[in-house]
Amino acid sequence: MENNTIHLLTPEKLLQRYNSVRNHTEVICKPLEIEDYVVQPIADVSPPKWHMGHTTWFFETFILLPNFKGYREFNPQYNFVFNSYYESVGARILRTDRGNLSRPSITDVYRYRAYVDEQMEVFLNKGLYDDKLLALIELGLNHEQQHQELLYSDIKYILGHNPLFPAYTDGNVFQESLVDDIKYVDINAGIYEIGYKGEGFCFDNELGRHKVYLDTFQIASSPVTNAEYLDFIINGGYTDFRHWHSEGWEWVKQTGTKAPLYWHEVDNQWKYYTLNGIKDVDLLKPVCHINFYEASAFASWKGMRLPTEAEWEVASGLFNWGERWEWTNSAYLPYPGFSKEPGAIGEYNGKFMVSQMVLRGASVATPAGHSRNTYRNFFHPKHQWQFTGIRLAK
Amino acid sequence: MENNTIHLLTPEKLLQRYNSVRNHTEVICKPLEIEDYVVQPIADVSPPKWHMGHTTWFFETFILLPNFKGYREFNPQYNFVFNSYYESVGARILRTDRGNLSRPSITDVYRYRAYVDEQMEVFLNKGLYDDKLLALIELGLNHEQQHQELLYSDIKYILGHNPLFPAYTDGNVFQESLVDDIKYVDINAGIYEIGYKGEGFCFDNELGRHKVYLDTFQIASSPVTNAEYLDFIINGGYTDFRHWHSEGWEWVKQTGTKAPLYWHEVDNQWKYYTLNGIKDVDLLKPVCHINFYEASAFASWKGMRLPTEAEWEVASGLFNWGERWEWTNSAYLPYPGFSKEPGAIGEYNGKFMVSQMVLRGASVATPAGHSRNTYRNFFHPKHQWQFTGIRLAK
Amino acid sequence: MENNTIHLLTPEKLLQRYNSVRNHTEVICKPLEIEDYVVQPIADVSPPKWHMGHTTWFFETFILLPNFKGYREFNPQYNFVFNSYYESVGARILRTDRGNLSRPSITDVYRYRAYVDEQMEVFLNKGLYDDKLLALIELGLNHEQQHQELLYSDIKYILGHNPLFPAYTDGNVFQESLVDDIKYVDINAGIYEIGYKGEGFCFDNELGRHKVYLDTFQIASSPVTNAEYLDFIINGGYTDFRHWHSEGWEWVKQTGTKAPLYWHEVDNQWKYYTLNGIKDVDLLKPVCHINFYEASAFASWKGMRLPTEAEWEVASGLFNWGERWEWTNSAYLPYPGFSKEPGAIGEYNGKFMVSQMVLRGASVATPAGHSRNTYRNFFHPKHQWQFTGIRLAK
Amino acid sequence: MENNTIHLLTPEKLLQRYNSVRNHTEVICKPLEIEDYVVQPIADVSPPKWHMGHTTWFFETFILLPNFKGYREFNPQYNFVFNSYYESVGARILRTDRGNLSRPSITDVYRYRAYVDEQMEVFLNKGLYDDKLLALIELGLNHEQQHQELLYSDIKYILGHNPLFPAYTDGNVFQESLVDDIKYVDINAGIYEIGYKGEGFCFDNELGRHKVYLDTFQIASSPVTNAEYLDFIINGGYTDFRHWHSEGWEWVKQTGTKAPLYWHEVDNQWKYYTLNGIKDVDLLKPVCHINFYEASAFASWKGMRLPTEAEWEVASGLFNWGERWEWTNSAYLPYPGFSKEPGAIGEYNGKFMVSQMVLRGASVATPAGHSRNTYRNFFHPKHQWQFTGIRLAK
Repeated sequence: MENNTIHLLTPEKLLQRYNSVRNHTEVICKPLEIEDYVVQPIADVSPPKWHMGHTTWFFETFILLPNFKGYREFNPQYNFVFNSYYESVGARILRTDRGNLSRPSITDVYRYRAYVDEQMEVFLNKGLYDDKLLALIELGLNHEQQHQELLYSDIKYILGHNPLFPAYTDGNVFQESLVDDIKYVDINAGIYEIGYKGEGFCFDNELGRHKVYLDTFQIASSPVTNAEYLDFIINGGYTDFRHWHSEGWEWVKQTGTKAPLYWHEVDNQWKYYTLNGIKDVDLLKPVCHINFYEASAFASWKGMRLPTEAEWEVASGLFNWGERWEWTNSAYLPYPGFSKEPGAIGEYNGKFMVSQMVLRGASVATPAGHSRNTYRNFFHPKHQWQFTGIRLAK
Repeated sequence: MENNTIHLLTPEKLLQRYNSVRNHTEVICKPLEIEDYVVQPIADVSPPKWHMGHTTWFFETFILLPNFKGYREFNPQYNFVFNSYYESVGARILRTDRGNLSRPSITDVYRYRAYVDEQMEVFLNKGLYDDKLLALIELGLNHEQQHQELLYSDIKYILGHNPLFPAYTDGNVFQESLVDDIKYVDINAGIYEIGYKGEGFCFDNELGRHKVYLDTFQIASSPVTNAEYLDFIINGGYTDFRHWHSEGWEWVKQTGTKAPLYWHEVDNQWKYYTLNGIKDVDLLKPVCHINFYEASAFASWKGMRLPTEAEWEVASGLFNWGERWEWTNSAYLPYPGFSKEPGAIGEYNGKFMVSQMVLRGASVATPAGHSRNTYRNFFHPKHQWQFTGIRLAK
Repeated sequence: MENNTIHLLTPEKLLQRYNSVRNHTEVICKPLEIEDYVVQPIADVSPPKWHMGHTTWFFETFILLPNFKGYREFNPQYNFVFNSYYESVGARILRTDRGNLSRPSITDVYRYRAYVDEQMEVFLNKGLYDDKLLALIELGLNHEQQHQELLYSDIKYILGHNPLFPAYTDGNVFQESLVDDIKYVDINAGIYEIGYKGEGFCFDNELGRHKVYLDTFQIASSPVTNAEYLDFIINGGYTDFRHWHSEGWEWVKQTGTKAPLYWHEVDNQWKYYTLNGIKDVDLLKPVCHINFYEASAFASWKGMRLPTEAEWEVASGLFNWGERWEWTNSAYLPYPGFSKEPGAIGEYNGKFMVSQMVLRGASVATPAGHSRNTYRNFFHPKHQWQFTGIRLAK
Repeated sequence: MENNTIHLLTPEKLLQRYNSVRNHTEVICKPLEIEDYVVQPIADVSPPKWHMGHTTWFFETFILLPNFKGYREFNPQYNFVFNSYYESVGARILRTDRGNLSRPSITDVYRYRAYVDEQMEVFLNKGLYDDKLLALIELGLNHEQQHQELLYSDIKYILGHNPLFPAYTDGNVFQESLVDDIKYVDINAGIYEIGYKGEGFCFDNELGRHKVYLDTFQIASSPVTNAEYLDFIINGGYTDFRHWHSEGWEWVKQTGTKAPLYWHEVDNQWKYYTLNGIKDVDLLKPVCHINFYEASAFASWKGMRLPTEAEWEVASGLFNWGERWEWTNSAYLPYPGFSKEPGAIGEYNGKFMVSQMVLRGASVATPAGHSRNTYRNFFHPKHQWQFTGIRLAK
């Protein structure tokens, strides 16, 4: 981040951006019942109220407390409740216990947000921030945007695993394209540069723009559709071990998985849960909610492969992306020259650089303005609950 | 239950009783925030909204649906959500998943209660019930009273394991005696009869009044106090394996337990969570929230023992009881001549008659009118979250 | 045990008995390959070499070390390896780790036995033992006899769960009766006495002979046969929850059990593993290797029940027993007046008196001279690997 | 492998090589007691007899059965027992159950080896093998060499986790250098080629020699010593979360690890288990038996990093290697153009290409002739039981 220059915004502009991001979180939560804010059906899915509190805690802990003289914490116990994984910042409740907490109440969490927002407004209006603090505020806003995407994933999981299958809303949530024709783009062998270059915000894991040598390859112009994936299902994709990683095959056998997350076969017809409730599977849409094992097995079944993240980034100007996080065949590892920030902020990315795979692009759930072709998203290969899809290479 | 004659009540009296019991459930829940209704911090603790729905489901499933012609279910999916363990009555959600359900909402659960209560009123007013149906309604009411006690235990667990330790209420919840002097009552050897005798309601597990031969014994006039239990703690009760069952000692080592549930040592002083929040331990009150292993180890440390359930029942006229469920050294097994009802109702008690210990008496959380000296409560020896205590024998 | 008088044996007689019991252990192990001594396929099944070492350790630890001046331990580390559960006697390896130990080798374990036996001979020949020590030696011998039965159970498990299904021997191992006709014996109501009475050895849990009141009952003259049990299987016994305890039903569903342990359905015919290898199920023999859940479900399916241990003992003079340990419907609890010995020996029985069911009788694997109609065997209700069977009552 | 030309060996030369490799396995096992062949203390550690049978099964299954007309299997059930993970070749016992099998006996396993070796001799002497079959035989021999290294790791684990800490031998096992002075080698930025090039044997994962672009870097001339690692321990390396991956830190906390595997602090002095028994830690030797988390945390503490596998390979001509498998910071992923063989052999490498890290070099336990600077070894980041070490880069 130090290598990363952000031009000082005026307090008005900054506050406008701050309010706009903060407000979007509440817009996402608006259709929820109070009860929906509380539950945590699996460890990976956090209760929406936790996301709301945790993103607020970020600003309180890293901006207001150390920089705004005289600031009084809203409630000193909230650090314990809303810290996620920052070992530098004291004890925290176990991730698996978040769904056991009925308090603080939703009302209190909204009060907490309002209080911190008020204080941020006072603080920002003073204009007493330098480049470094501005970068930290910007990090806090990008952090909140990441949680906005998680809010969609987690809300979908909470409602989509309820036996009543309630809709999140009856209105339109995401704009999604229909894929008709897939072409393959050719890329020549050679030295390319990847990594962030520019003057805006990026995460530390994107920095250290560097050269890579790529062999010639071809990459699909569109993501894999539900129709293609259904073919894989029908043709025994989930029962033929040859296409699976050993670890993936164990996962198939242990979980008994036979289709993407949210798919249900009802009277020989495939349906899936959407944020509008149960619907017929739309064959022309990009397949969604598959994990790395599934993406990789599908590619093998097709006689192709997943691109590396370097291939993806180099070719990304030649195709449309942004509706699904696309699994790459790259593990999440540091770029040459990667270095962690000192202190709690340094815990942000580096410590996750083992046992995860990189996803590139963005998804329908990604907030506007939060995507770049250098963005390195990452999840454990078993995770299905994000808005993930497949782009083939060969 | 067939052996058990219940005189026909007039519809008015029955409805009055029905409404009084049903209303008490809502009185217990009144101080809760909506969020408190939803969570399930451990498998044994059900979300309050589940208790509210499940007790209602009992009347819908066993009274209205089979007996009230033209009755329309409130929501056919509720059977799946609110069935507890009745294998006869279809699939049900896993007990450990109850806390993952944000829907039905609290509002919907109250609506469900109101709907069933309305229908029960219409149905009861017709007076078309015979002895057998009356017994079933009575069972439903006693069942709801059992869940009223569980509501207190579960609410205490939910709030008492929240890092903010919120009070359930600032007002008085339970009336509790202070114990000053403990005496021992002598009982002569001989043949005694135990089991339910009378014309009111009892559970099937109390029936089959039968003779038992008892040796002479002595039993304490009062339950063990916090002061006595603190002595046990201070004098190494939790670190001396000799007083513990092998299984209990494993439990101590695995859980690291050093005091009853809800006790916290703060700056060398023992405090405990109560429904009014964190308080100093009141030394004169009966110890509460200990499991069978702890009760038994305490008795061994005292050089005494726990009474059997027959001893307890025979002597119960000679001491005060009713503030703590008292662990006996009797396993929960059928009385001679025990027989299960046919159908779902027969699942009520018999199928739990293995690996559980009997508790006798009642507790401060037991609803008025729901205690008898023949009542056989039972829990697995490891459970602490009920309002359990110790009475010594020798 | 203090209440229990054992007349002093002459050193020759005692040594003869000692040698006879000790030798029988080695006779049982004779057909084994060295490899068979080592493995522990499940936590409950100990490696045969552990049994051989542990029974020897008993004599070294409780007789020689404290009583034989100048005795030198064979190997001081063996206490850690061969202690089973005596918390008083130092650290011990986890039960689940016994099968991970390749050393001490079998040769060393036999050497250990020879060394301790030699030293015992020298010690016993001096005749310097009083009643108390004699009782302890007798306990050691009975303890070894218990492990002789466990050796058979564990060897059967080890070989019977090997995919090659090797025979333990081609010769005859156990003498077993064929059951043809089952009658029911009537017992009148009244006061009876149960518990050990006599001058020989018994375990502390049999002491405290005491009165019990029994209602009139009937008990079968013979154990349930394989033919009867097969009927239960064929008629859906394992798929009808109504006959099962809730805990038993969970066990059925989780384990997928459909027949007794060691039964295999091959081409629509039932076979079972015996110590002579795989054989056709002999329909006239008593059913074996069923757990309490199965015994209880079978009884319920028959419209009968299991006897209590008092009923069993009172009626035991009126039927043949001794080929199967017979599950009773009594939990393993102390008799009135039960008291533990001080010290390690006191850990023998009392600390297991929770969560176990009593079995009465003896089995084909029980050593000669090690059975009494007051003997209280006990296992957790889920265990199948002992030579267990069913006797019905009504 | 198809791209890989192996010149046809004469039958004599091939048989000589075959016998030499096969014999080495038995040389490694010679010092073992029979009991040592049987146990499996953790899932990753296979019983030595399993290694002996499994490597033999490879030749029986892939060479003799499909190619040697009239060959009769030694025992058809052995496929079930000795198949490791080849899904193509039928059912297999669970990896975690290998240590539960007392049979086949060691004698039978040696007989199995002798039988297959005899048959292989007859078969090879006929000279009826083409390039493809020769490559498969060569694969079988390299496969056996991999298991020879695993035999050392597993034997060390079995004996080093026995409370008696028996020595494998009193003689010298491995030749190990002492490290005195560490220098750093400079490598210039540029395009390099990595991957196997040559005419000998290599694994499929080494093929597809390809270009990579590397930035300038420095790499240590020697591996990290016990002295340096002890510094890390003493200076709080295991208690400072900042140096650890999140997943590594969880591992530290859950396992309570404070030093490399086999290290024991006795009276404030560090000792470790070696194949000669417990010895003082030799400070000048390269640290051994650390996992990826530890290697990475150590590098972070030093202010350096682990090399990538490309860096390691490119620089490998400039330093000595071969005593420790060296953790790289590269995940185990396919090289560009990687393709799996069809059939069971194709399961060899590709299906493990997720969630593992690459190790480069070789170790003291690697058989002679089984190392190359293009060799890609891989293990899950948590594994410590291999002969693993650290080389730093910056």
